[in-house]
Amino acid sequence: MQQKVEHIGIAVKDLKASEAIYEALLNTTVYKRETVESQGVVTSFLRSGPNKIELVASEDSRDVNNVINKYISKKGEGLHHIAFAVTDIKAEMLRLQNAGFTLLSQEPLDGADNKLICFVHPKSASGCLIELVQDRDIIS
Amino acid sequence: MQQKVEHIGIAVKDLKASEAIYEALLNTTVYKRETVESQGVVTSFLRSGPNKIELVASEDSRDVNNVINKYISKKGEGLHHIAFAVTDIKAEMLRLQNAGFTLLSQEPLDGADNKLICFVHPKSASGCLIELVQDRDIIS
Repeated sequence: MQQKVEHIGIAVKDLKASEAIYEALLNTTVYKRETVESQGVVTSFLRSGPNKIELVASEDSRDVNNVINKYISKKGEGLHHIAFAVTDIKAEMLRLQNAGFTLLSQEPLDGADNKLICFVHPKSASGCLIELVQDRDIIS
Repeated sequence: MQQKVEHIGIAVKDLKASEAIYEALLNTTVYKRETVESQGVVTSFLRSGPNKIELVASEDSRDVNNVINKYISKKGEGLHHIAFAVTDIKAEMLRLQNAGFTLLSQEPLDGADNKLICFVHPKSASGCLIELVQDRDIIS
């Protein structure tokens, strides 16, 4: 967990509108858009130096079971999760479980941006949804 | 805004309890604690590579006007703001105002960690409270 903040996820209603806002804010352009079908979300990525901002919207604003729709209906648009880069996600998952953190999956899952990911339950982390992210390229 | 994510602010109820959680999560130790009297908050900092996590708690949990108490009573503990490092905060404030963003102060303010800061209203940024941060050392 020492590497860096890999990205910060922001839950938004209207991906195109928020892309324009964050392009102006960060004085850059969206460099990638990606649909994560397993989560029913569409994502856009922007860079801030070594870090990324991930805008996340629901694929279907009428789907009341969609993870982003549920989040926005409860808390409104805004900061959704922090992702930390790790080099060995399985070792990190084991370390955190042993330290008492609750993981949302027992195995790494496929994430956007060609990553392996695992989420830590917000109840374990002062209300923050934490994501672990490992590049697929560095799987041993 | 291109430099990096300077820090991510997390609103917490019990600073000591959250320090222990984030020390375990990030496998590191809090390297600084600081009171920001102008905001009525106490802060603790941890590193994640080039980035920092700032835990922010109210100085007085009974103060209903405290900015962190108000946030937690509305949204619960969790992600509070993203701070982006800038080299020239006044130029960046002018650029963002001209792009239509609403700033929460017309001049840079004193922040924690020997910084000059300015916040951008969440309504301007898809619900995220955005902070600009400039090192005092690089004031021209």
